[in-house]
Amino acid sequence: MKIVLDVFGGDNAPEEIVKGAVQALKENDGFKLVLVGKQEEIKALLTKYEYSGDRVEIIDARDVITNDDVPTEAIRRKKDSSLVVSFKTLTSDEECVALISAGSSGAVLTGGMLLVKRIKGVTRAALAPLLPTVKGGFVTLVDCGANAECKPQMLVQFAHFGRAMATSYMGIQNPRIGLLSNGTEDKKGNQLNTETFPLLKAEKGLNFVGNMEAREILSGDYDVVVADGFSGNIALKGCEGTALAFMTILKNAIMEGGLRAKIGYLLMKPVFKKVKKTLDYNDYGGAVLVGLQKIVIKAHGSSKAKSICAAILQAVTLHNRGIIDEVTKALTLDDKVDNE
Amino acid sequence: MKIVLDVFGGDNAPEEIVKGAVQALKENDGFKLVLVGKQEEIKALLTKYEYSGDRVEIIDARDVITNDDVPTEAIRRKKDSSLVVSFKTLTSDEECVALISAGSSGAVLTGGMLLVKRIKGVTRAALAPLLPTVKGGFVTLVDCGANAECKPQMLVQFAHFGRAMATSYMGIQNPRIGLLSNGTEDKKGNQLNTETFPLLKAEKGLNFVGNMEAREILSGDYDVVVADGFSGNIALKGCEGTALAFMTILKNAIMEGGLRAKIGYLLMKPVFKKVKKTLDYNDYGGAVLVGLQKIVIKAHGSSKAKSICAAILQAVTLHNRGIIDEVTKALTLDDKVDNE
Repeated sequence: MKIVLDVFGGDNAPEEIVKGAVQALKENDGFKLVLVGKQEEIKALLTKYEYSGDRVEIIDARDVITNDDVPTEAIRRKKDSSLVVSFKTLTSDEECVALISAGSSGAVLTGGMLLVKRIKGVTRAALAPLLPTVKGGFVTLVDCGANAECKPQMLVQFAHFGRAMATSYMGIQNPRIGLLSNGTEDKKGNQLNTETFPLLKAEKGLNFVGNMEAREILSGDYDVVVADGFSGNIALKGCEGTALAFMTILKNAIMEGGLRAKIGYLLMKPVFKKVKKTLDYNDYGGAVLVGLQKIVIKAHGSSKAKSICAAILQAVTLHNRGIIDEVTKALTLDDKVDNE
Repeated sequence: MKIVLDVFGGDNAPEEIVKGAVQALKENDGFKLVLVGKQEEIKALLTKYEYSGDRVEIIDARDVITNDDVPTEAIRRKKDSSLVVSFKTLTSDEECVALISAGSSGAVLTGGMLLVKRIKGVTRAALAPLLPTVKGGFVTLVDCGANAECKPQMLVQFAHFGRAMATSYMGIQNPRIGLLSNGTEDKKGNQLNTETFPLLKAEKGLNFVGNMEAREILSGDYDVVVADGFSGNIALKGCEGTALAFMTILKNAIMEGGLRAKIGYLLMKPVFKKVKKTLDYNDYGGAVLVGLQKIVIKAHGSSKAKSICAAILQAVTLHNRGIIDEVTKALTLDDKVDNE
């Protein structure tokens, strides 16, 4: 099994990407890596580390897609970019099972949707990140931004994607699925939600719990949160923003709190480190673009070596536990039900 | 000027509501209060406090609307509930300028929409809470939940509501207005957003900054965030939930951190208190239902005396600074532009 890594995507590319790649090779010996980007730079960076050379392949790509590029144009025109070459490698080499990029979100999404085939029956792929919960587990939020405009049947598919993620990656047998809404009552929601609710309720193979509010996302009471990509993105970014705001307000209060606060802070440093680690979802890998025939992972733009390593190991786990089969099975079951 | 207070709405009614009322009377002498609910209970509670009797009027109402009631039915059928009688008092007594309730959100919204006239030109009223920002100021989020389904022109009105709130309540002269979206680029968003964007851009009298992400809500870079009520609710609840999750994770880490962590926590207690105070938006009053001919404030269901007092003083400020005139002026300007 090979995993394709876009070495020139992300704020800290290529140094941290290569460093993360080598770390992952050390931590797990069940895969090979295909590193894509300017080959002389990749080779120069690799000389810094010890690694088993026969597990690494380099494919040259001279161009880079940046956040300033318009995603659809970039994917079509920058044929020799590290990202487009990564996608071409993923789809043309049968041994390649996954692609990871920390580059432009829009370009990774567009590339995944245009260049990788969807699983039979899938209307649109959706982006599913893992978020930490207060109970120490994880919740996946599908879709967190791939599809700004959705139809009810798409949300039913997203529920299946989430179930597959929770089962195959998180190891949860009968994951609890909530529909993100503006209240918990059955009739709550906008038109999309109220139309989706009865479909989810009727759908076989899903443990649909009902409507939920955004304040419950991190509660640990749900394994899967289903949302259209617009609302899901707002929920995700709202959570991110509040966590950052909390840290800033805390820092300011410590600065203004005099010596007592500063000593307290020094004593509590390990506690804060632990909190930061718990909340930093980048450490758990990236967001998976689910619904495609191969695994595509969007790592955070600011990913350092640790996050890249986590994303590679996430891809290995997802492949070994058969995420693609899980989704395929769920949608085939759908077809059967429809045809009865 | 009189302010109507629903004494039997909220988790801590009637005790904390009456206590908050008396506090507000002490802090500001520019208004009278109309307390609505079971009069013998209100009278009994009032005997505990010293207050100027000629500033308090009691109107008897025997029934109570709870969170278990279906809002529309409750407003129509429970004619003798403290909330419905409060609304009737607000609309029938010219001296009454505002109503405050910590009762069922749905019932307060429905009551406001059915029983209080809208300002001429307003399509739908919207709910606007004040949220604290990391820079020490406030931001208002319109709509945070009154309208799950919106049209572009409604969002333009919400922008005017937000501008009026920021100008008249927060004292900001040219408030920066952002449109909540799934990215900052001009073309980002779902259909509603992409249709609203050019309208906001073209609208006179608004300092429209552009699309913004939910992670920027608390940044202090915006004074007004415009959203449909569904997305706005998700953003608001997402922020609330993350702040709660952060506190829980922090507490757990302290509990597991041994003696060092506990001593650190004791030293940092004043810091945490300050952070909590900064983030606790209930202390700043309630969410204002903007667009109606009188001021309606929904205080948090869990409001204690302090929040009720804050909401009453908020109503006084909003009235004195002419929020209704601000909105009316903005929409009349709209009309003029339309008729040119």
